Amino acid sequence: MSDDVLSKTAETAALYFKDVSGEKPYELWKSFDRGMARDLSMFITGQMYAREVLPHPVRQMVAVATLTVLEKTDELELHLQAAINVGCKPRELAEVIFQTAVYGGVPAMNQGLKVLRKVLDDQGLWPLTDAG
Amino acid sequence: MSDDVLSKTAETAALYFKDVSGEKPYELWKSFDRGMARDLSMFITGQMYAREVLPHPVRQMVAVATLTVLEKTDELELHLQAAINVGCKPRELAEVIFQTAVYGGVPAMNQGLKVLRKVLDDQGLWPLTDAG
Amino acid sequence: MSDDVLSKTAETAALYFKDVSGEKPYELWKSFDRGMARDLSMFITGQMYAREVLPHPVRQMVAVATLTVLEKTDELELHLQAAINVGCKPRELAEVIFQTAVYGGVPAMNQGLKVLRKVLDDQGLWPLTDAG
Amino acid sequence: MSDDVLSKTAETAALYFKDVSGEKPYELWKSFDRGMARDLSMFITGQMYAREVLPHPVRQMVAVATLTVLEKTDELELHLQAAINVGCKPRELAEVIFQTAVYGGVPAMNQGLKVLRKVLDDQGLWPLTDAG
Amino acid sequence: MSDDVLSKTAETAALYFKDVSGEKPYELWKSFDRGMARDLSMFITGQMYAREVLPHPVRQMVAVATLTVLEKTDELELHLQAAINVGCKPRELAEVIFQTAVYGGVPAMNQGLKVLRKVLDDQGLWPLTDAG
Amino acid sequence: MSDDVLSKTAETAALYFKDVSGEKPYELWKSFDRGMARDLSMFITGQMYAREVLPHPVRQMVAVATLTVLEKTDELELHLQAAINVGCKPRELAEVIFQTAVYGGVPAMNQGLKVLRKVLDDQGLWPLTDAG
Repeated sequence: MSDDVLSKTAETAALYFKDVSGEKPYELWKSFDRGMARDLSMFITGQMYAREVLPHPVRQMVAVATLTVLEKTDELELHLQAAINVGCKPRELAEVIFQTAVYGGVPAMNQGLKVLRKVLDDQGLWPLTDAG
Repeated sequence: MSDDVLSKTAETAALYFKDVSGEKPYELWKSFDRGMARDLSMFITGQMYAREVLPHPVRQMVAVATLTVLEKTDELELHLQAAINVGCKPRELAEVIFQTAVYGGVPAMNQGLKVLRKVLDDQGLWPLTDAG
Repeated sequence: MSDDVLSKTAETAALYFKDVSGEKPYELWKSFDRGMARDLSMFITGQMYAREVLPHPVRQMVAVATLTVLEKTDELELHLQAAINVGCKPRELAEVIFQTAVYGGVPAMNQGLKVLRKVLDDQGLWPLTDAG
Repeated sequence: MSDDVLSKTAETAALYFKDVSGEKPYELWKSFDRGMARDLSMFITGQMYAREVLPHPVRQMVAVATLTVLEKTDELELHLQAAINVGCKPRELAEVIFQTAVYGGVPAMNQGLKVLRKVLDDQGLWPLTDAG
Repeated sequence: MSDDVLSKTAETAALYFKDVSGEKPYELWKSFDRGMARDLSMFITGQMYAREVLPHPVRQMVAVATLTVLEKTDELELHLQAAINVGCKPRELAEVIFQTAVYGGVPAMNQGLKVLRKVLDDQGLWPLTDAG
Repeated sequence: MSDDVLSKTAETAALYFKDVSGEKPYELWKSFDRGMARDLSMFITGQMYAREVLPHPVRQMVAVATLTVLEKTDELELHLQAAINVGCKPRELAEVIFQTAVYGGVPAMNQGLKVLRKVLDDQGLWPLTDAG
């Protein structure tokens, strides 16, 4: 694996997961298998997220939308924090989650909103204001 | 239902589904129940898609991402056409679909790419160029 | 397996799948493994569907609803035919499918409506009339 | 939105969600966006659930079946309470959940049974009696 | 139901679920309906799991893989315990879960790893050693 | 990317996908983005499938089981061919698919059996014999 991928992995991870609470996926993977943890991390963070075709806020909204319809609450919480780190506004994130109801149903949307409310509350951003 | 919602529904539908091929959902619904078709259409197109919190290209990328992981190929084809209608670039749409592999797996991504290739081919946009 | 379960299996299968077109699941299973086909058939048709806690039309509406949200189109087609065999009205079946949009999203509902339209058309019941 | 839809929304909500415990979806939506909460509520409760094509007990069994296979436990709990409010018997609800195992697998059925047991226990209806 | 199926059910259940913690599915089913519990148990444990086409460790790895991608955590915990009872090694189980990321996505894999870590920890098998 | 990963990727791909019909995933990816195709291929085939913790036949049965419950028919066809290439017997593959019914439901199992029958038929291995 080249130094370039290594540095992109570190840089993107720092951007997304700064001050993120809870165990990060990389730590979970490493507790089982150091080589697999490195390969997964390099691929996802260094080779996928670091690509410049999409701006980071759009990439995070894509993550939030899919994790909501798939109802993956741990990763949704992680990516909502990353979304705020790269500049997404709370009302934009709520809107992404609202829109998913059309495709993935209302119960998945409800679960997504509950996770967002928790993340915003943890960061002192709840309740929403007009500027939110 | 107010005139305002009616006109927003018509306006947004025209923007998204201009020149879209195949049966549109509204026509399918109306073949079963005229009242339900109107209520669904007003809610989704007039009250949800017409909201201004997210720009249309972002809204379409959210649709493309969720429809890929849920593997809803008919609607994915429809929204890929809408995405191009509102200005998304082919490479951005491919990138959204690539990214979903992390959350929804590689087979769903593959199916999404095949639908995108078909849509681009139908519109004379395939193969991709460097500017694509 | 007692004679009782055998006769209930035959009776319920005759009620549900009379004049149903296409390969039936039992035939598919038997082409692989005769014992597994018998065990699956006895369990599902003889021990589950033959229970009298729910009337057959309700049981079929339950099947139609779940097969719609899970987007299992082959089995949906089969159970829509069974539903009509046990007395469900076309408008009731459409309504069940419409309602699932709230839980499983609009694209799954659309797919369900398309399958229902095909089944009704095959039986000369399309387009719907006011009495439908 | 006409007065008719408003009054149907209120009437149906009262019928279904009387004495239901926990946060109701409408309250969750309103905490994010008052307009979206109104539109969602009018569409789902006032325009969908209030339609008279299906009797309310059948509509609730459809909800219970789909929410079981999709494993949406919060909404399943809500609709199991609504089902009892409109007259479904505990044994009918258990039977709907048992039947879904054929379509959505045994683990989803198990989760549905656990939620039903909790709801029945909360209402003093557990363990089931012969009349249950 | 023949004595043969009854004895195979008991034998296979003893092999898989020895010392398994928590409520077993059979007990859950029986709390609702004694007949259904018997039929489900005979079919799954006596007729399916007792078949000799696949060795038990392979059967458990199949269970672990599917329960991971379907994110059924209660049953995953149960089958991880059964897998260890029939001789699967911890590193093999982790590898099965890692591989599923390709098909079902990384968040489902993460959830699977967390359940495995809990099971191994409960049995004094965590952290993994080189021989694990 | 080291030469070692490159050679493992080529070796594993040759083992699995020898004589496999249809477009391979790598070709699909490359038609969109050469860099992404290389990264995905290296990660999945060179770093995941080439690991020696599980024998190849077990790895393929894991793939077959998960692709069946997720109903990813294109990839299922591919991995059924790979499974036969690494020595899995037709009856073992049918048994894996039968077992998944417990976790993912009968309709997904049916779809899996249909894909298996097609693959076996294409290879002159259908109908099954006692030695199959």
